[in-house]
Amino acid sequence: MSSAELPAPPETPEPGTRFLAEIREQPAALLRLVAADDEFARVAAEIRAREATTIRMVGHGSSDNAASYGVYAFGLLPHWTALRDSISLTVYYGAELDMSGCTVLALSQSGRTPDVVEYARQAKRRGAYTVAFTNDPSSELAHEADAVLELRAGDEQAVAATKTYSNQVAALGLLAAHAAEEGREFADGLRAVAEALRPFIPSIESRIAGVARPFAYAGRMFVVGRGAEFATAREIALKLLETCRIAAEPLTATDLAHGPVAALDSLFPVWAIASDDATLPAVVEAVERAREAGATIIASGSAAESIRNAEYVLASPPTTSPLLAPLVSIVPGQLFAWALARVRGLDPDAPRGLSKVTLAR
Amino acid sequence: MSSAELPAPPETPEPGTRFLAEIREQPAALLRLVAADDEFARVAAEIRAREATTIRMVGHGSSDNAASYGVYAFGLLPHWTALRDSISLTVYYGAELDMSGCTVLALSQSGRTPDVVEYARQAKRRGAYTVAFTNDPSSELAHEADAVLELRAGDEQAVAATKTYSNQVAALGLLAAHAAEEGREFADGLRAVAEALRPFIPSIESRIAGVARPFAYAGRMFVVGRGAEFATAREIALKLLETCRIAAEPLTATDLAHGPVAALDSLFPVWAIASDDATLPAVVEAVERAREAGATIIASGSAAESIRNAEYVLASPPTTSPLLAPLVSIVPGQLFAWALARVRGLDPDAPRGLSKVTLAR
Repeated sequence: MSSAELPAPPETPEPGTRFLAEIREQPAALLRLVAADDEFARVAAEIRAREATTIRMVGHGSSDNAASYGVYAFGLLPHWTALRDSISLTVYYGAELDMSGCTVLALSQSGRTPDVVEYARQAKRRGAYTVAFTNDPSSELAHEADAVLELRAGDEQAVAATKTYSNQVAALGLLAAHAAEEGREFADGLRAVAEALRPFIPSIESRIAGVARPFAYAGRMFVVGRGAEFATAREIALKLLETCRIAAEPLTATDLAHGPVAALDSLFPVWAIASDDATLPAVVEAVERAREAGATIIASGSAAESIRNAEYVLASPPTTSPLLAPLVSIVPGQLFAWALARVRGLDPDAPRGLSKVTLAR
Repeated sequence: MSSAELPAPPETPEPGTRFLAEIREQPAALLRLVAADDEFARVAAEIRAREATTIRMVGHGSSDNAASYGVYAFGLLPHWTALRDSISLTVYYGAELDMSGCTVLALSQSGRTPDVVEYARQAKRRGAYTVAFTNDPSSELAHEADAVLELRAGDEQAVAATKTYSNQVAALGLLAAHAAEEGREFADGLRAVAEALRPFIPSIESRIAGVARPFAYAGRMFVVGRGAEFATAREIALKLLETCRIAAEPLTATDLAHGPVAALDSLFPVWAIASDDATLPAVVEAVERAREAGATIIASGSAAESIRNAEYVLASPPTTSPLLAPLVSIVPGQLFAWALARVRGLDPDAPRGLSKVTLAR
């Protein structure tokens, strides 16, 4: 058989193609979510009617990172206490917590994460009102829950989540805003964010390879954020771990000073997310200490310019509320992970040892 | 002036002397705490009388790690919801949360951590019953709070906390036990732990240098625990960061599977804490995956022998309750940090860039 007769090889997309396509799709995914605004208003009304105003959030990985944002969205908008609950306490230890007066927000892209499903089942039995946040309204989690808020991120093929994460953040913000009867303003804000992202994504994309290249051999990194941007710090660190195999640890600005700063030197870079809000002085101060320890600084966020002596600055366009900023400031981190994975010869679409639906306990 | 006339150099103790002395002092420190058992009974009765049964814990560094344990102690003993609260939400963003029905446990060794003091002040104004957990009953934090529970760890001179951390864990457990009217049993349990630690500390101490030496050049590490031992995982990771300058990240067993496992290889060791409780199968399964990725495993905890293929096993003696186990399983991590810092020529008594009282925001 001559080589001319050989069947064509299966088409394998270039590594990272899916991951990049899904990063780019985020503005459209946000608009799909906002279009279903009514469902969020309905669930918020139900929570208020039931007076189930302690919000318990559960999820793993990116979903748990989004929940960090929920703490601030529910605290700042309806002034409710929201917590990232321990799954083990209920699922493994069987603690008999009274969950009346509580709403459970169970976050799972696939709706199939076993212990999240089991937690939702038990929380319902203990008196909680349960809401599934999932891309799949026909999933087991959706069936178990009292209500479903579909994430509408669309089919996500890259193993490392991007548009699902940002739609989870947006969904938590939108629900919190409706609970505070400010849903319309927040929905307008989300639309404005989608518009701001359209030029921002390609502008970062065009210069990110130059920022990523010097980190080709970095083995570790801290990602620092505070307040609403702590979720962003956690999610950027997770992307770097998953796609670039960097030991990246998220820290609040203050946590950095309480110990970890001792580990820094010129081989241990720090990514800082500086948002133009009340947490900014703490972030600036923490980065100053990291700089003194010799760390290379990458500054991002809407107040990136406030970080002095940063080697790299990836500033975000401003937003009308600190609660909208994380939807913008996540993007440079996602694109940096994409670019750095490529520099390292890794495929961000399919990190080694991971699958899209994690069934591990 | 001949050398014989030179003044004697100031006595500088060998690096790590204080850190080691304070690790060794933990059984005595625990017994001092238990001797003040009555104070815990009194505060628990006050919480019950006020029905302030949502527990909001705040602290940084080791104090925040101890708070991770509090989630389980209050969940499993009086079946109350306990959360590690966001300090920024209240202190920086000024969120108007209603804290009636809440008890605040403000954890600060020195009682001088600025934003913990400010949080306690604001929480009181918002209706919370506030309790200071501190070594210094004359501190600003103690003055702000409605009640003080003195940690009685004694003067801690090494910058990296050891006996303060374990007394914070014990104090949270003891308060939770009294809230559940099981204070006497728990106090007995703490005394038994102190007894078990007396031979355990020197037995680990005598063999830890051999375990630490092969990690002389390790740059990163994951520390895995779940449930009540997640606090231990966080605290061991912090000790490794502070004293050995390793990028050590704490993860729950399930978090490891949701992304970070992709970063593992033979240069990225994993420390696993396996306790003989309901979370054990999840921990065993997670370590199995880490092993498949080529990671070197250090197994510790009361069920360390259940971890197959661990290169190093540092098993703890059993305890009568999973809530007592973290007081024992922390010790091999502290001693490993001490030994590894020495191997690396670092002084665990005084990590670079840190001071005993952190005044950073």
